Amino acid sequence: MIAEIKNLNQHAGQTVTVRGWLYQKRSSGKVRFAVMRDGTGYLQGVLAQGTGSDAAFSVFEQLTQESSFTMTGIVREEKRAPGGYEMTVTDLGVIQIAGEYPITPKEHGPSFLMDNRHLWLRSSRQHAIMRVRNEIVMAIRQFFYDRGFILIDTPILTGAIGETATTLFETEYFDLGKAYLAQTGQLYVEAAAMAHGKVYCFGPTFRAEKSKTRKHLNEFWMIEPEVAFNDSEANMQLQEDLICYIVTRVLERSRAEFTVLERDTSKLELVKPPFPRLSYDDAIARLRRAGMTIEWGNDFGAPDEEKLMEEYDRPLFVFNWPTECKAFYMKRDPNRPDTVLCDDLLAPEGYGELVGGSQREDDLELLRERIREHKLPLESYEWYLDLRRYGSVPHAGFGLGLERTVAWICGLDHVRETIPFARTLGRLYP
Amino acid sequence: MIAEIKNLNQHAGQTVTVRGWLYQKRSSGKVRFAVMRDGTGYLQGVLAQGTGSDAAFSVFEQLTQESSFTMTGIVREEKRAPGGYEMTVTDLGVIQIAGEYPITPKEHGPSFLMDNRHLWLRSSRQHAIMRVRNEIVMAIRQFFYDRGFILIDTPILTGAIGETATTLFETEYFDLGKAYLAQTGQLYVEAAAMAHGKVYCFGPTFRAEKSKTRKHLNEFWMIEPEVAFNDSEANMQLQEDLICYIVTRVLERSRAEFTVLERDTSKLELVKPPFPRLSYDDAIARLRRAGMTIEWGNDFGAPDEEKLMEEYDRPLFVFNWPTECKAFYMKRDPNRPDTVLCDDLLAPEGYGELVGGSQREDDLELLRERIREHKLPLESYEWYLDLRRYGSVPHAGFGLGLERTVAWICGLDHVRETIPFARTLGRLYP
Repeated sequence: MIAEIKNLNQHAGQTVTVRGWLYQKRSSGKVRFAVMRDGTGYLQGVLAQGTGSDAAFSVFEQLTQESSFTMTGIVREEKRAPGGYEMTVTDLGVIQIAGEYPITPKEHGPSFLMDNRHLWLRSSRQHAIMRVRNEIVMAIRQFFYDRGFILIDTPILTGAIGETATTLFETEYFDLGKAYLAQTGQLYVEAAAMAHGKVYCFGPTFRAEKSKTRKHLNEFWMIEPEVAFNDSEANMQLQEDLICYIVTRVLERSRAEFTVLERDTSKLELVKPPFPRLSYDDAIARLRRAGMTIEWGNDFGAPDEEKLMEEYDRPLFVFNWPTECKAFYMKRDPNRPDTVLCDDLLAPEGYGELVGGSQREDDLELLRERIREHKLPLESYEWYLDLRRYGSVPHAGFGLGLERTVAWICGLDHVRETIPFARTLGRLYP
Repeated sequence: MIAEIKNLNQHAGQTVTVRGWLYQKRSSGKVRFAVMRDGTGYLQGVLAQGTGSDAAFSVFEQLTQESSFTMTGIVREEKRAPGGYEMTVTDLGVIQIAGEYPITPKEHGPSFLMDNRHLWLRSSRQHAIMRVRNEIVMAIRQFFYDRGFILIDTPILTGAIGETATTLFETEYFDLGKAYLAQTGQLYVEAAAMAHGKVYCFGPTFRAEKSKTRKHLNEFWMIEPEVAFNDSEANMQLQEDLICYIVTRVLERSRAEFTVLERDTSKLELVKPPFPRLSYDDAIARLRRAGMTIEWGNDFGAPDEEKLMEEYDRPLFVFNWPTECKAFYMKRDPNRPDTVLCDDLLAPEGYGELVGGSQREDDLELLRERIREHKLPLESYEWYLDLRRYGSVPHAGFGLGLERTVAWICGLDHVRETIPFARTLGRLYP
């Protein structure tokens, strides 16, 4: 019978065959130990004279790191083993003997590992990160599905510019001229929110930014909910609910992975509502008192974010930013037209901005004015302006960056490890 | 109290406020009827002298189609109403009076409707389609999550060519030359399958094809599972399981939407395992007997698919196609090297190919040979060839086109209605 390693608890005492790759092997006297990984777990096979066939011993000698093989034997409970089971091996079968594997237990530089990302994914840390990412994504999907949000898959190829004209990837689109790769699905989810009330998109987005930091990717996944009749306050509440839901669920389901990653989960246990809230004005005052030289009207740099977060053990909302440093579609605060009704949600532990959200400008004339001020081509936005012509309502939404969320939850130094195949300034391969 | 229309069953006899858009209105004597849609449902408000305020009557007069407004009143059970409830209106409030709405109950051509897609999404049919799409997507995510598949979000910007060099969108990628928009995530999920065993990707894919049919989009979403140690047979079983799961779940959860769409769900009730299976050879023989003139070695045209499906009330597997009409990565049948171990899954009711799947070539030399034969740049595939150098195993996977699945399940004439904002040869706006 063929079994997956994670299911061996159902096969104690039985003879089964597992299939996978050689993680490591060693000999001790006349006993041979082969650790197989099959993607679902790790299993140590114990091959000894008397129980194992001669052929099995011969296969054992041939096996190199990452060779693919089958291992047959009796499943035995073994409390000390990582998965709680071992195998008394009766037989081994070669599938393919791997050439000399490039990734060895010695230290490799990040560039070498990224060049071999297709293989690096097999390493235990990378394996754990992708599993946590999988749990985070499913948590997000479930959160929105359970709350009656409708998924709206927004287009990647667009004629309109989502945020700013300066960081666009472009491609020829048949006879229609240039198409731009979407920086955001927001404009489109706004249209859909007028049809469905509560919607979200969740797909890849693109920024042709020449940033080379540990927080930037040129292609990354973003979750963007949009809710008709939500104001900025309700928008922050939704962000808080979502983040708490994700963290709670991942803490329940990804314990084994956090152990592999040596993640201090006590830090995550602190992520409980309510999240502290600070106006931009107050944040600036606080930063200045702390000796930072930031001017009112400027975006925060990484040092500002880090300084600000020193006092907080959970995410912090900084709300109502200066109009001049935010996107054209954000609604101006009627009482403070030099600020917009928006928020950034900063992660603890130095992970920076997780979410950017805002109430949207719902007045046709004000929105048209903002598009002009930002020197965006008005004709590309006529459809977007229609949303203010035909039943405009207050509405709000936000964008949560998936990779930064994974980096924070897993406690990683660099976002390049949070996505299967990172695209950065210098990397398009593999 | 503010409520969503879908939740009014919790508020019978209470006074609540609903918020939304005017779907239609009419007068009968001194009574006024306003039907609101709020994205979650439709609600008829009944405004009469004695119960409704004078101001409410004045607002009623102002309301135009798609104007946004609030409606306050007492929720009453009403068996004849679509959602089972009506409202005795006490007050109406204007949010925004819509200009003359472009989409009227009269017939519009598809081009006009697609120009106004951002508004067309509000129509009851389009609303229902997006809700079914949402259910299908969640069914797919749940199917793979429950079975222990790990989601692998594969890159859109790629250096390697997934299928064929002739239908690629391309963009400049900094100093690295050209990047191509992914036609498939398959090569990448193959790498991940060697790390996790069972994986899938689910994202947008791109084909710069100049096809103008009711089954083609230039940007569409595809689900691509990949499983280590699966052969072509197990691969077909997984497809059958997935399709049956989707159909069963959507039949449970989308009854109301199927009613709006006038979908004959008895056709979907027939989609039960096992699906019939026909070798390509047998399919060709059958087509010829039916009077078609297709030659062995050719792909099926739409008329061939339709002819073949006349006898079937559920999806049909056509397996083991000629090597010459399939992609380079498919494994040749060792017993019939002029064919590959693959399948196409054809939908009933004329919807054509839903799935294309195959066992993958796992031999390094044969794969290298195929890449050369297809005149693809070998150096871009070195990482992919590594998967055959380091622990190659038999593996198989498939691609399910989301939009064709939605078109079939909803019973639609054209895939352009299956995705929020379709991208076709002549369409990049809105």
